[in-house]
Amino acid sequence: MMKYGIVAFPSKRLQDLANTYRKRYDSHYSKITPHITLKEAFEADENEISNISQSIASIAANHAPLNIHASKISSFFPTTNVIYFKVEPTDQLQKIHQDLQQQLNIGKPKHVFIPHITIAQDLTATEHDDIYGQLRMIGVNEQEVIDRIHLVYQLEDGSWTTYETYRLTGAE
Amino acid sequence: MMKYGIVAFPSKRLQDLANTYRKRYDSHYSKITPHITLKEAFEADENEISNISQSIASIAANHAPLNIHASKISSFFPTTNVIYFKVEPTDQLQKIHQDLQQQLNIGKPKHVFIPHITIAQDLTATEHDDIYGQLRMIGVNEQEVIDRIHLVYQLEDGSWTTYETYRLTGAE
Repeated sequence: MMKYGIVAFPSKRLQDLANTYRKRYDSHYSKITPHITLKEAFEADENEISNISQSIASIAANHAPLNIHASKISSFFPTTNVIYFKVEPTDQLQKIHQDLQQQLNIGKPKHVFIPHITIAQDLTATEHDDIYGQLRMIGVNEQEVIDRIHLVYQLEDGSWTTYETYRLTGAE
Repeated sequence: MMKYGIVAFPSKRLQDLANTYRKRYDSHYSKITPHITLKEAFEADENEISNISQSIASIAANHAPLNIHASKISSFFPTTNVIYFKVEPTDQLQKIHQDLQQQLNIGKPKHVFIPHITIAQDLTATEHDDIYGQLRMIGVNEQEVIDRIHLVYQLEDGSWTTYETYRLTGAE
């Protein structure tokens, strides 16, 4: 069994911006570059993955490139001490998340889908309040189009490698 | 301008094995997961990259999955203090490297192509001798098939993100 996930990587510009915070505040900084998780981590057998990959390819062929608006800095506190770039929820993002969730049918979602790019995690309560106070004032306002999604798998050390890339070539 | 490279990621098993050394000895450990570089880093404009990507796709379509044999632990000393899993050079590896080099025609190769998976770098001379002495005795002997290659780009912090994956679907 291996652990897989499905993500969208923002442009280099937006990744670089997220990393200016992540390198100081995100315990997972070195494990994966900045991303929007479209399907949470799930377990699959190496033999199953080629079928799963084909299903993702079909879904990607039905979806247009994603319009992304990172509009402000928010926090999941008190659920978790995670600070993130809020990505405006759109019908398009909800729909691709829902298609990946339902059509792959692997692993129940643990949370409601809130599109975001994590910039800080594993902070103490005091660190969280301090850093969140500062970052919320700085804010973020970046719009862009992401034309592909990635299936990634996790190594034993927690880092992620891309298995396959899928271009979003659909109409909506 | 962005910095790109073309790599083959070994299986999770072989990556995990390389990481047992890399986490202790490789200064680039957190920047990219273990890989075989097929084309050294080159600069390209974001507008050029879709043409470059199409050329890589054509090359990948002409090459069969790569037979890899990590056969021993070697070092580039005295050229550099890099210790690596030596990947047996085959006609197949030489040919795909040559096709990528000549058909993309971007950036001259700095070195003769010696297929390898880096496991240690940026060591002092004493560290190098010490660690190389130990690792050479442990050795490595892993064979596998890699059925895809990746175009990756570098962020400002030195980490690499996959731009596109290409399956090797050719005959030889």
